[in-house]
Amino acid sequence: MRPQIVLFGDSITQQSFGSGGWGASLADNYSRKADVVVRGYGGYNTRWALFLLHHLFPLDSSKPPVAVTIFFGANDAALKGRTCDRQHVPVEEYKENLRKIVQHLKECSPATLIVLITPPPIDEEGRKQYAISVYGEKATELPERTNEMAGVYARQCVELAKDLGIRSIDIWSAMQEAEGWQKKFLSDGLHLTPEGNAVVYQEVIRVFNDAWLSAAEMPYDFPHHSEIDGKNPEKAFQQRCI
Amino acid sequence: MRPQIVLFGDSITQQSFGSGGWGASLADNYSRKADVVVRGYGGYNTRWALFLLHHLFPLDSSKPPVAVTIFFGANDAALKGRTCDRQHVPVEEYKENLRKIVQHLKECSPATLIVLITPPPIDEEGRKQYAISVYGEKATELPERTNEMAGVYARQCVELAKDLGIRSIDIWSAMQEAEGWQKKFLSDGLHLTPEGNAVVYQEVIRVFNDAWLSAAEMPYDFPHHSEIDGKNPEKAFQQRCI
Repeated sequence: MRPQIVLFGDSITQQSFGSGGWGASLADNYSRKADVVVRGYGGYNTRWALFLLHHLFPLDSSKPPVAVTIFFGANDAALKGRTCDRQHVPVEEYKENLRKIVQHLKECSPATLIVLITPPPIDEEGRKQYAISVYGEKATELPERTNEMAGVYARQCVELAKDLGIRSIDIWSAMQEAEGWQKKFLSDGLHLTPEGNAVVYQEVIRVFNDAWLSAAEMPYDFPHHSEIDGKNPEKAFQQRCI
Repeated sequence: MRPQIVLFGDSITQQSFGSGGWGASLADNYSRKADVVVRGYGGYNTRWALFLLHHLFPLDSSKPPVAVTIFFGANDAALKGRTCDRQHVPVEEYKENLRKIVQHLKECSPATLIVLITPPPIDEEGRKQYAISVYGEKATELPERTNEMAGVYARQCVELAKDLGIRSIDIWSAMQEAEGWQKKFLSDGLHLTPEGNAVVYQEVIRVFNDAWLSAAEMPYDFPHHSEIDGKNPEKAFQQRCI
């Protein structure tokens, strides 16, 4: 009955219902107006995401989502030959995989609002501290992700959105505008703090509002309680519920 | 594809995806295992909730929810003849309405795990402060809700659950076990603080785990990223996705 907003991505999407998470904030914002559905897959890159595409977004769905955020790249941009080599996807393939995801969603429903989100920036010092906390002395000196490489993927993501005429959020650039972004927005050099979640939430809401998906302009699913006459409640429900 | 857990209730359910909210915490806990769907209606009592029942839980649904929490009573227990008179529902009717909701859900699917939650306690001083903050000098001296009356409704809720052989959470009693519950758990004498949300979350998880709905024992919807062979990803997806 209610429209669905699907959040498709990696761990940064999967964790978006944690305390202060951007997904939970979206669900709160669209309360009684749209359902926010999390389809976040920690550790996934775009190559693996393609395996899920037809399962998560079947072509014959009678009710495709009104909006989908696509938030991959943090794992694709892991460096080749380092500890996360397994997750690495070359940037050209990353862009092509994103293109396939967008094309599939357009095939499901041309009306769906599709928003590409770039990978966030990387705090290399934070990643190093994290590796030491997990692996101790065995932690390698060589970073498995760099901010520079995340930026290369972010630019391709934004460029693809322009090519396809869809909206994008350059969270890699947006976060780096703030002083101290490294610790302010990132908890382990990669994942988001509550402040980092707030930045993503604000950017997504800005883009949704700028399109046609403003919660303020969407109807409640059922009458607001103030519209219900205590003595004659049937009346308020007549239109939609009886 | 994923099982659904539906949270049905009033404002305390509607607001459960706010910061630290019990609904968002549930969604995080069942991440990649079940979808948590909010069906919270601020200001609603059980009488009005009945109008929504067949719309939210159609009898012919091909995929009924695996679990439903029913969390009403805070508005039903508003005192007759006071400022929230419109929302008042006599306690006998409250109990019968809850019975109708449970019976309908059982008719939808006998396998659905149904959990009744009592209204939370009321901090009358907190309600008074809230009324003054909204209405100023016009705020009435007479409380619109009392903790005693909320307790009357809570007891009927627990009793009904026993009658019907289903699970219940007596949040009215559970919260009052803690010293300073009035300000610790309630933000305006009625709605929940983040600590109050944590109590509800813990109680719901306890009951869900005690039934057969423990996230730890539920399968992931798709392979965990660590199971995916970087050189041969097809293999991990073969069973469920190709």
